[in-house]
Amino acid sequence: MTMSEDHGVDAGLDARHRARMQRKKAMVDAKIAAATDVRGVLLVNTGNGKGKSSSGFGMVIRAMGHDMQVGVVQFIKGAIPTGEERFLRRFSGQCRFHVMGEGYTWETQDRTRDIEKAQAAWACAQALLRDPSIGLVLLDELNIALKYHYLDVHTVLADLRARPAAQHVVITGRGAPPELIEAADTVTDMTLVKHAFSQGIQAQPGVEL
Amino acid sequence: MTMSEDHGVDAGLDARHRARMQRKKAMVDAKIAAATDVRGVLLVNTGNGKGKSSSGFGMVIRAMGHDMQVGVVQFIKGAIPTGEERFLRRFSGQCRFHVMGEGYTWETQDRTRDIEKAQAAWACAQALLRDPSIGLVLLDELNIALKYHYLDVHTVLADLRARPAAQHVVITGRGAPPELIEAADTVTDMTLVKHAFSQGIQAQPGVEL
Repeated sequence: MTMSEDHGVDAGLDARHRARMQRKKAMVDAKIAAATDVRGVLLVNTGNGKGKSSSGFGMVIRAMGHDMQVGVVQFIKGAIPTGEERFLRRFSGQCRFHVMGEGYTWETQDRTRDIEKAQAAWACAQALLRDPSIGLVLLDELNIALKYHYLDVHTVLADLRARPAAQHVVITGRGAPPELIEAADTVTDMTLVKHAFSQGIQAQPGVEL
Repeated sequence: MTMSEDHGVDAGLDARHRARMQRKKAMVDAKIAAATDVRGVLLVNTGNGKGKSSSGFGMVIRAMGHDMQVGVVQFIKGAIPTGEERFLRRFSGQCRFHVMGEGYTWETQDRTRDIEKAQAAWACAQALLRDPSIGLVLLDELNIALKYHYLDVHTVLADLRARPAAQHVVITGRGAPPELIEAADTVTDMTLVKHAFSQGIQAQPGVEL
């Protein structure tokens, strides 16, 4: 490999890099020293780009790697079997996986039934949010149910506030309501830069499904 | 559960919802019909917010749920053992997991050594990118190695272009170079809205680690 050899021999560049990284380390270390609070965090992944649910599932396996018990409730998806469901079903002793939706709102087209399904899904979420043995809860596409007013945001927030102190919760979906963003500790807007789908590429198993 | 009963009985609202969802379904179905291309996609997760690596790991288990073989190369992280590493190491028959970094650039402070490590990591990535039995490759924090010019972006792009046609690749890290964004099929900017760390909360196992 020779692609960066010309950089490797530049002693001045190396010294400047080192000085810059020393300043950065001092800054990062000070921030780490200031972050002393240890508690369950509430995370929200919203926005129109890809990565909201997949990031939630990444945290699910991260928690499982630390031997935590985890719970997943899928509020909207459900009509199509997904790779993450197939994979996580194998760990029924460590991961409780509940697919409660019947598909996207434009597929069901039935508001009354969607509300019933969302409320049944929330009952399922409540059981997880009251269980201190569950270290991390993923409420996948909950934001969609809130956006369509299938669930009341104040009921949802009250249940989130009452959860065990050490429990982490990840909520995903487009259009997170302002009240939820306000209540959350960490919020990411997955901003769409571009998407393969718009360029005529089908949703791919392993990527979207 | 009574939180949305008042909505449930509104027949006018139900009818409007149904009409709106029918229009939306027609639009979505037309887009799905237009997306006929099936091939490996190149995804980039960049930006300053949380969710870039975790989304990559979500796609890793999604692919594993479809019985694909997967490969992971971590370019920067490495000093701290993570939950995702502990979890995925259990699947050595399906997931090749390579931790090639020694830690963040501000921890090593040694540019020459970082370049050597990045090039060794790229050699490892090349082996995965030449193997048609690998369905999905996650190149975690590769963008950092590109940003610091530890690797040459044109070499990286040439190897990505030469990969098997059906192979998906996910690249993560802040500061993705414009050439990579241009070459990618799907790009998300994980935009920071807020982060628990800035509010004095420590990096938490299961969430950040």
